[in-house]
Amino acid sequence: MQSSILNLFFEPRSVALIGATSNPGFGHGIPLFWQKNGWLDRAYLVNPKGGEIQGKKVIPSISGLPEGIDLAVVIVPSPAVREVLIDLGKKGIRAVIIESAGFAETGPEGKERQEELAELAKGMGIRLIGPNCVGVVNTGNRFATIEIMDPSMEPGSVAIMAQSGVFGNILLDHLPTAGLKISKVATLGNKIDLDEADFLDYFAADPGTRVILIYMEGTNDGPRFLQALRRTCRIKPVVILKSGRTPYGREATLSHTASLSGEDRVFDAAFRQAGAIRAMNLQEMVEIARVLIAQPPMRGRNIGILTTSGSLGAMTADIVYQEGMRLPPWQPDTIEKIKARAPGWMNVKNPLDIGPSGIFRPACEAVFADPNPDGFILIPVIPYAAIEIYMRLGVKARDMLGDWPAYRETIKDKPVVAIHLGYREWIEQIKNLCGEAVATVSSPEAAVRALSALYQFNLHSEKTQP
Amino acid sequence: MQSSILNLFFEPRSVALIGATSNPGFGHGIPLFWQKNGWLDRAYLVNPKGGEIQGKKVIPSISGLPEGIDLAVVIVPSPAVREVLIDLGKKGIRAVIIESAGFAETGPEGKERQEELAELAKGMGIRLIGPNCVGVVNTGNRFATIEIMDPSMEPGSVAIMAQSGVFGNILLDHLPTAGLKISKVATLGNKIDLDEADFLDYFAADPGTRVILIYMEGTNDGPRFLQALRRTCRIKPVVILKSGRTPYGREATLSHTASLSGEDRVFDAAFRQAGAIRAMNLQEMVEIARVLIAQPPMRGRNIGILTTSGSLGAMTADIVYQEGMRLPPWQPDTIEKIKARAPGWMNVKNPLDIGPSGIFRPACEAVFADPNPDGFILIPVIPYAAIEIYMRLGVKARDMLGDWPAYRETIKDKPVVAIHLGYREWIEQIKNLCGEAVATVSSPEAAVRALSALYQFNLHSEKTQP
Repeated sequence: MQSSILNLFFEPRSVALIGATSNPGFGHGIPLFWQKNGWLDRAYLVNPKGGEIQGKKVIPSISGLPEGIDLAVVIVPSPAVREVLIDLGKKGIRAVIIESAGFAETGPEGKERQEELAELAKGMGIRLIGPNCVGVVNTGNRFATIEIMDPSMEPGSVAIMAQSGVFGNILLDHLPTAGLKISKVATLGNKIDLDEADFLDYFAADPGTRVILIYMEGTNDGPRFLQALRRTCRIKPVVILKSGRTPYGREATLSHTASLSGEDRVFDAAFRQAGAIRAMNLQEMVEIARVLIAQPPMRGRNIGILTTSGSLGAMTADIVYQEGMRLPPWQPDTIEKIKARAPGWMNVKNPLDIGPSGIFRPACEAVFADPNPDGFILIPVIPYAAIEIYMRLGVKARDMLGDWPAYRETIKDKPVVAIHLGYREWIEQIKNLCGEAVATVSSPEAAVRALSALYQFNLHSEKTQP
Repeated sequence: MQSSILNLFFEPRSVALIGATSNPGFGHGIPLFWQKNGWLDRAYLVNPKGGEIQGKKVIPSISGLPEGIDLAVVIVPSPAVREVLIDLGKKGIRAVIIESAGFAETGPEGKERQEELAELAKGMGIRLIGPNCVGVVNTGNRFATIEIMDPSMEPGSVAIMAQSGVFGNILLDHLPTAGLKISKVATLGNKIDLDEADFLDYFAADPGTRVILIYMEGTNDGPRFLQALRRTCRIKPVVILKSGRTPYGREATLSHTASLSGEDRVFDAAFRQAGAIRAMNLQEMVEIARVLIAQPPMRGRNIGILTTSGSLGAMTADIVYQEGMRLPPWQPDTIEKIKARAPGWMNVKNPLDIGPSGIFRPACEAVFADPNPDGFILIPVIPYAAIEIYMRLGVKARDMLGDWPAYRETIKDKPVVAIHLGYREWIEQIKNLCGEAVATVSSPEAAVRALSALYQFNLHSEKTQP
């Protein structure tokens, strides 16, 4: 694939900004961001007005640029883009991001302008991202073609592809709160050239990326996308959030990124066959991604549940069923071990609801030792008032629930997810107890869907094994 | 209905705790809670061992209690409950909460014990909550039969009914973070006497309650419950979260509260016919409740959407369709007003995606003035890096997006919901801007489902109008 070309977008040796300005907006913000992140030295700012921006001389025309620039970022108004592209082609620039809006998403006239651009780029051998996007982010080298807040630039291992620029940006703003760190981001916009298929292959090969998230509204070339998706899902988990699932959504995506979002059932089946994980909403996508990064694949459908709340156990059991996963029975000796410690009222089933019995520790050790489950969900909710006094005395969740990271060492190849819910201080305790060993999520849905995702990934990645 | 009897549970003049103790656990925690909240003076603590708890003399037997006690709370082990109930009956106590577990949820033996209790209570004219529950909470008078953290005791207008004690408690721990304040709580457990129907009628008549939330696993008397639900939904919105939707969930609820949770489709249809709102998960229940408290009913299905993100607009449009709500077109003069302010690339549709145009203010005024929508969703997401500098200079979201509470005054009878997403500081800005005038939620799902709930409530409450 075009990985060498895509390297020009994420790791340019030099970059030109066409439409830099000292007025508020992208043309001002991007040079500022480059300055903060050590990229202004490798940047060229272009504006017919000339002058200086961030102490850097502005070049009045593209023809005035030096030769050999790797990447150009275009933010001029849409009617001016055509001329800019021609000039960039003449300069021999091979990688261009067009952030400007005002193309197919606005109607027939814009569509014509867009088609003209596509032909032009093809003729000149230019590879293009956009138009109607905000380009790329690479946290590893702190390069981005859009302003990003500092917390979102902390390097991680999740790559994101978003059709929409604003949404990609909002997602980046949101992720630090959600505890997710990014490797690379590509926002694709109207996709007149490079599309999801190109970036799937690139992210699949990217050593810094472990999980790939896609927000998409539609695809221009379904078969090509699905082929790339199938290839990628064998190597790394791919989670997809797709709009345009209904007539209302389809009309909205049409005027947003000119996407033909197609029949939803067709996409749904195709995603599943390819081995991709479909998220139903943003929160779910983020929580599933957090688990996928931190936990091993799941070898089978069997989930063991240990809970202190029968209600949350029942809610989780419902979702296990809906997701096509299974609740295996415990082995006889597991049941014996638990019954030896349990009060008379306790039903030793799966979900194992230990209620207020206080036997979480031995129960956790016992179920972890059971070979039947392929993965576990822990639901350690406790009414805080009942334990506040101990917490004040310095007792920790670990003292009450056991040393999960240590127990977990005995089942390294099985994923373990904990649901945190309740009083603020208790949630902090649970997160501390889990550390890196056990993934935490905020709902039964996220817990089950994440394990299901780990199972699906295992299923499809195994296919490549001999 | 039995409102006089239920008053004994929520506003007892005196209360006895059978099973008080100085050892850790409920028997210790409840007297401590009563002391903190001014109820110990009206309480009698019973334990055969006698002695003192929280400086209060313990009475060794129920026969030693004074006459005329309104309510007894029983927390002795299950085998001892029968004798306790007989003694309470002899004392003429008419309202009893049995918190002890170890009845029908544990198997045939427990079931027999439970049936015996039910008969006993009936014979002695005792009304019962439980067994296998944690009783009641009344934030108005700070009475509760379980320990609750202080933040959860702040009085509000949401009443909660939860079958499970632990879950009711966890929910209470969780709600302050979610911004929801409670009027009363009833946890029902195995429901050998008082059940959802009784509390529905009680909460429907309760002047301090505006919205009712139910977590249920099953019902013993479907027709009676549905009649009460129908009555209540005409007066106040009722949101229901139900487990036991699948075979796995049904088995779990059986061993949790001995509930026969029944065919889910039957419940679903019955809830809808009665006018109740079904939440699919906990977070949704809480967010819908927050909107229901704060916003007026919605007169029709038509939703107007104003967004700065086309993607979030499309996601929201999908959910509008799925929920059976509608996206009406804007009136011609609304379109004219917006086009007069909009850049050329903007599509003036519903959802109205204004992208980075910066025309939120006039767009908001224009769509609010449009008579077509019956309610509005605002999606004011903005990449924070682009505006950080203004925020640092003291610019507020209100300066950028307009004075929503003022605009809102012009459409007082229509609900308005805003979705907050993105950088932490921006979310705070949006919450401040909304104040009490506009409800905030964290996702497109919650926004649409909340408006749908306001529409459903209006539909069913109107039926009682002449």
